[in-house]
Amino acid sequence: MSTGIVTTSASVSLDGFIAGPGETGIEHLFEWYDAGTEVFPSANPGVSFNLSAADHAYLTAAMARIGALVVGRHLFDITDGWGGTHPLDKPVVVLTHHVPHDWVAAHPAAPFRFVTTGIEDAVAAGHEAAGGLDVAVNAGRMASQALAAGLLEEVVLDVVPVLLGGGVPFFDDLGAAPRLLDGPEITPGERVTHLRFSVRAA
Amino acid sequence: MSTGIVTTSASVSLDGFIAGPGETGIEHLFEWYDAGTEVFPSANPGVSFNLSAADHAYLTAAMARIGALVVGRHLFDITDGWGGTHPLDKPVVVLTHHVPHDWVAAHPAAPFRFVTTGIEDAVAAGHEAAGGLDVAVNAGRMASQALAAGLLEEVVLDVVPVLLGGGVPFFDDLGAAPRLLDGPEITPGERVTHLRFSVRAA
Repeated sequence: MSTGIVTTSASVSLDGFIAGPGETGIEHLFEWYDAGTEVFPSANPGVSFNLSAADHAYLTAAMARIGALVVGRHLFDITDGWGGTHPLDKPVVVLTHHVPHDWVAAHPAAPFRFVTTGIEDAVAAGHEAAGGLDVAVNAGRMASQALAAGLLEEVVLDVVPVLLGGGVPFFDDLGAAPRLLDGPEITPGERVTHLRFSVRAA
Repeated sequence: MSTGIVTTSASVSLDGFIAGPGETGIEHLFEWYDAGTEVFPSANPGVSFNLSAADHAYLTAAMARIGALVVGRHLFDITDGWGGTHPLDKPVVVLTHHVPHDWVAAHPAAPFRFVTTGIEDAVAAGHEAAGGLDVAVNAGRMASQALAAGLLEEVVLDVVPVLLGGGVPFFDDLGAAPRLLDGPEITPGERVTHLRFSVRAA
């Protein structure tokens, strides 16, 4: 079976933040998820996205490539593991220091794996779960660790026309810098511009 | 006579820096100025730009709109005022705490003005010098002050596919955040993507 690539994407402000100071600014960063009339499915009841035609076509194609997600423990905790079903309905690998045994016992059918041995093993578990499709590593700490480890092959910026002035950067630690990329492939959307870059080997 | 708008532009990394740590990274940020074969004129002997056809057309149109430049004292000092002639051959307004009287005496014909009374007066002097064309405020501190003062109407990011990991941000202090923009108008180039945004009134 072929192996997919390792990619990351996030809605990002013009000044490079995926969340504003004190977790503000989300309503601006995610405005494009509700800037149209084409419904994008969510696995969670009560959550739906209403996209422009361009963004719907873009996101449909982008999500079809993804076979598994790699996320950090903080995101897992604040969402309580999405109740066991990620909104994108994909298998999830959680990089953590400690496996949440109570949560696992309470969600026996959830397609979640917990990895305690570092980003390399988390990405490897992602490839195993992805069935030959791509592995999407969460922006922020996870993507930074994957980039520093030489595992990240693609970066997608969903550039939103807002300046946040601070907050959580897309990459918080590059390891060795500068890092060169190629591209982008450009897809204009509504309140967003999708820029897809490939990462050059360090 | 009509008045132009106040704009700012700079080559910027994917993580939002216009220079890397310790003023590194310039060779990556400015790679697109030497990524083609079409010569873009400079008023300074020994300085020329070799652009792709797309970037040459873009930069020619962008520079034709600019009637005057507003820069900070740091840039003026490290270039020694470009010897009295800015490479773009435009009038220059320098925002400073102290007028460099010796430099002024040594460059009597230089189209430079020195403003000591703040960003509003510097931009006003820029409009006077611009002959109805646009006023380009330098990215970084000057653009941030203009934005915070409600004077900045346009932001152009020349997005370069490099991650720098730190350095000088395009905006170092927004005043009140978040700030919303509209656009962008997109022009793909070689080792650069030009994104032109308009600033919404605060």
